[in-house]
Amino acid sequence: MLGAVEAGGTKYICAVGTEDGKIMERVQIPTEYPGKTIPKVIEFFQKHQIDALGIGSFGPLDLNGQSDTYGYIKATPKPGWVNFPLVETMKKALNVPVAFDTDVNAAAWGEFLFGAGKGLGICLYMTVGTGIGAGAVVDGKILHGLSHPEMGHIFLRRHPQDEFEGFCPYHVDCLEGLAAGPAIEKRWGIEGAGLPENHPAWEIEAHYLAQALLQYILILSPEKIIMGGGVMKQPHLLQRIHREMERLSKGFLTLPQPENYIVSPTLGDDSGILGALMMAKDIVYGK
Amino acid sequence: MLGAVEAGGTKYICAVGTEDGKIMERVQIPTEYPGKTIPKVIEFFQKHQIDALGIGSFGPLDLNGQSDTYGYIKATPKPGWVNFPLVETMKKALNVPVAFDTDVNAAAWGEFLFGAGKGLGICLYMTVGTGIGAGAVVDGKILHGLSHPEMGHIFLRRHPQDEFEGFCPYHVDCLEGLAAGPAIEKRWGIEGAGLPENHPAWEIEAHYLAQALLQYILILSPEKIIMGGGVMKQPHLLQRIHREMERLSKGFLTLPQPENYIVSPTLGDDSGILGALMMAKDIVYGK
Repeated sequence: MLGAVEAGGTKYICAVGTEDGKIMERVQIPTEYPGKTIPKVIEFFQKHQIDALGIGSFGPLDLNGQSDTYGYIKATPKPGWVNFPLVETMKKALNVPVAFDTDVNAAAWGEFLFGAGKGLGICLYMTVGTGIGAGAVVDGKILHGLSHPEMGHIFLRRHPQDEFEGFCPYHVDCLEGLAAGPAIEKRWGIEGAGLPENHPAWEIEAHYLAQALLQYILILSPEKIIMGGGVMKQPHLLQRIHREMERLSKGFLTLPQPENYIVSPTLGDDSGILGALMMAKDIVYGK
Repeated sequence: MLGAVEAGGTKYICAVGTEDGKIMERVQIPTEYPGKTIPKVIEFFQKHQIDALGIGSFGPLDLNGQSDTYGYIKATPKPGWVNFPLVETMKKALNVPVAFDTDVNAAAWGEFLFGAGKGLGICLYMTVGTGIGAGAVVDGKILHGLSHPEMGHIFLRRHPQDEFEGFCPYHVDCLEGLAAGPAIEKRWGIEGAGLPENHPAWEIEAHYLAQALLQYILILSPEKIIMGGGVMKQPHLLQRIHREMERLSKGFLTLPQPENYIVSPTLGDDSGILGALMMAKDIVYGK
């Protein structure tokens, strides 16, 4: 049996499952302070005989195997989690090997293995929720270089009608600061889920997300882009993004039919946890 | 003997050399209309017994092996070259296998094999000249996905003191439209090479290039960025870019010492032609 954790800003999803990607049991644990959340996570896995654990976590993370702080969560705005040694803590408590990556890299891995990215040379998974992030699988490997990508923090041009300042604690009005769930709520004083389809909020949202996708395409040239996260649950949003991309790219890029190119995750909300499970498999069996 | 072409907007560099990267003879041929330039290129290679030819060309290019127009130069503003079947023409004339990629991908390949990118997991080569482009080598392979990247055409935020409109025929004020050599010349009425080190032109230039590099880093996470091209021959420019990146990234990214991270090409002006030569080697011997 293998273990998987999807560590998110609001909840930890913990699951055990098989090496072919079948989830046997799962729990959700609220993300509070580490001292409250982590013991419950450990308790769940102690009830099961797992051979390895895969973790996809909110970041930024230290993924450098040579670093003294490998496996730590780094400069997150989430209280109590800065410099938390997540990998070390889980290894000690469970005595199994632990694979560690960002939540979006785990989701990209899940979609590449079982979902919309199956068999592709380059696929990108993006989440638009309380934060914005993206991960990529290139030639059958999760993309890592100097560190993991931080695609949620790219600069954008402002929408001419948008007067919201932005809320990113680092950059103020980067992509995440302008287009993540909390930006919508702060801009309009109401959660995105409560805004009608014809509200100007969605035009602004589509403008920022389309800009971001075009940057990703110009730089990384993915063969498919899979968009998950809470904000993307608006059924009309994907189509608005398609239209705005057409308008902004001005015929420069020859893109596939948008319905087949920018898509929802095939695995629904399970891309991340299944990806984490397969990361656990990869350390037990190799890739 | 192997053949290599670096097809640029102003000149074709043609060379023959050995499989270990030694150039034995080279010529430069001005890039005029294909009917004038290409016969001279063919003539050069006909004088030598080559086993294969590698071409790094200005783009955009069709690199899709399944496409009817594979090996064509696509929607370039360069008169006469739109839809020119470069690969087919060279194959027919020389009767050898031809490897084909963008000029910047060839340069990235050259620097990865012999230069500043040696041994790295992800290295990026960027040129800032009459146009702007970049290519990457990821895990020992030139990065290709849906197509080749077009990193010169990303959107940027305008420098607040910059009133120049931009000159990109597609996007007007994308990176290339604001920061390639012709943008400097059109903005100030004089070529960059004629502007003194303390001219405000360089602050604006560094602002745009630093923004672009930060986007590349956030999306692709390269372990090193190598910057070539005519504009980068200004000896003070690289340092200005380093400073502007510090200022813009606001402590969010932990970057290596800039002197070791954003660097000049080790191979000088030969990154592209050597990369093209090694592309020829790869089709003869495999990678």
